[in-house]
Formats: sequence, structure tokens, C-alpha cells
Amino acid sequence: MQAREIAVELPTVTVRDPVAKAVRVMAAGHLPGLIVVDGRARPQMVLSGTQVLRMTVPGTYQEDPVLARTIDEAHADLFWQELGNLTVGDCLPRQPVRPVTVPLDATLLEVAALMARLRSPLVAVVDRAGVLVGAITLDRLLTSLAVADPGD
Amino acid sequence: MQAREIAVELPTVTVRDPVAKAVRVMAAGHLPGLIVVDGRARPQMVLSGTQVLRMTVPGTYQEDPVLARTIDEAHADLFWQELGNLTVGDCLPRQPVRPVTVPLDATLLEVAALMARLRSPLVAVVDRAGVLVGAITLDRLLTSLAVADPGD
Repeated sequence: MQAREIAVELPTVTVRDPVAKAVRVMAAGHLPGLIVVDGRARPQMVLSGTQVLRMTVPGTYQEDPVLARTIDEAHADLFWQELGNLTVGDCLPRQPVRPVTVPLDATLLEVAALMARLRSPLVAVVDRAGVLVGAITLDRLLTSLAVADPGD
Repeated sequence: MQAREIAVELPTVTVRDPVAKAVRVMAAGHLPGLIVVDGRARPQMVLSGTQVLRMTVPGTYQEDPVLARTIDEAHADLFWQELGNLTVGDCLPRQPVRPVTVPLDATLLEVAALMARLRSPLVAVVDRAGVLVGAITLDRLLTSLAVADPGD
């Protein structure tokens, strides 16, 4: 099988989208991450679910579990509403994000090796021009591998 | 809300389980990772989905995309069948794995901060004795946060 055969269409976001919208898109689609595309539908980066989550959790709480523990339950339920108008572009990971993309003819082994190497449960499939044509989630990959297994 | 209110029961594995079984458990449950428990049902570690995937992809392919590209499609579909009798214990990550656990009364902010800090889309919920009582996935957390949002 090739990437093109198992890729599916998933919602994407841009750097101008509010973080709150990005979280909603991910939650509504039960996605393991998000593909951030530019104005020409080319993936700029692929964020894992926990990278998206990081955008919503104030850094002080991430670094200090004791501090997070001091926030009472009612306020703790609502922490992500304090995002205001912050955009995805405002909150991108500081470290450079390697592009998690494969060509249409990538094999399942290539997809798996990329996911494993970059610790990304989501891979963007692009055409020769670098335009997004679909996405492969880890779940989709594993299901496809099981299907490919004649002993299963 | 507290961790106990959103935790769900998920299948687990032990270090003695074959890697192939671990992958099947994860795929069948559409899980973002796996909790590895000891003989007393205490979480030994929580593996993200990509950490589980890493166990199945030979290291040489993870490190060398060009080499992965040389494997033809038919063989690439079947790479994970070469696992043989390798167990989860045989393939654990080399770096020490921090326990991704929260107590029953952890708030959603604490759960989110832990997931974000440890980049784990899965958290084990434990009682005072350290025994597993449930699990929270990133998807479950986000859904719960959306539910908690009175403006949604």
C-alpha cells in the first residue's frame, strides 16, 4: 500500500486561527494532532495533540505541578478560556518544527518510520508541489497494517 | 471536575506481552497510547502511541529515511510482522520513562499540564496505593473541557 491509499481528508488550521478554534477542531474531529497550512494549502507544520494542548496551558502550570494543584476545581475547569484572541501563530513551539510530510507514493514503512522518528501521530501527505492532499493518523496506519496482515 | 469523573477503563499490557499484541490492543481500542502495568495493576509506565510504534519499526529505518525508501511496497506492508516473540519489556525506550499518573482528585488543569509537560496523550489515574483505576486520553480531556465550557 501507498500513502495515497490510506490518506484521508482532515480539517486543517492556519497560523491566523485562534488557538481556541484549533482545540475545538481537534476535539470535534477526535484528531491526534493538527496540520497547519499556509494560504496555498501547503503544510507549514504538523502539531501533535500534546503540542496543541501546550498552547492552551499557561507555561507556569506546565512547569510547576505544585502551582497547578493550588488552582481550585471550578477555575481549573476553565483554564483554556483565558486564551482570548491568541492565535496558533502566537503560540507555536519555540523549537523549529520539522515538516512531517510524505509523498503520495510513500510506503507504510516510510510513514511508520517518520511517525516514530518525529514522535508525530499525524502525517501530512503532499503532492509534488508540496500541496496537502490528505492526512494519515497513527490509528489509520495501524488499522491499515492490520488489514495488510494476511495472518490476521 | 476531577480526574475520577472523566477517567475510563482502558485495556492495558504488561512487559511480558508481545509487542505485536500491544500494537493490536492499541489499534483495536483506537487508543493514543498504552499503560504498562505490573502484576499488581500498578502503572509502570505510560507509552504514547508513537513510542509503541517505535517498538515495531527497526531502528535502521527510523534513522535513515533513504533506507526505508528502498524497501518495496509488498515488504513494507509487512514490516511489523518481523517482531517475532519480542516483548514490550524487550523494546522499552532506553531513556527512563517518567510515570504519567495523576491522583483521583486531580483537576483537569493538572491533567492537562501533565500531558503537555510529558507530551503524553494518555494519563493513568491511580489510587493512593498506586493502583490503576482508570485512564484519561487527550481526546477525553478536550471533550470534557468543552463540556465544562458554559459558552459552548
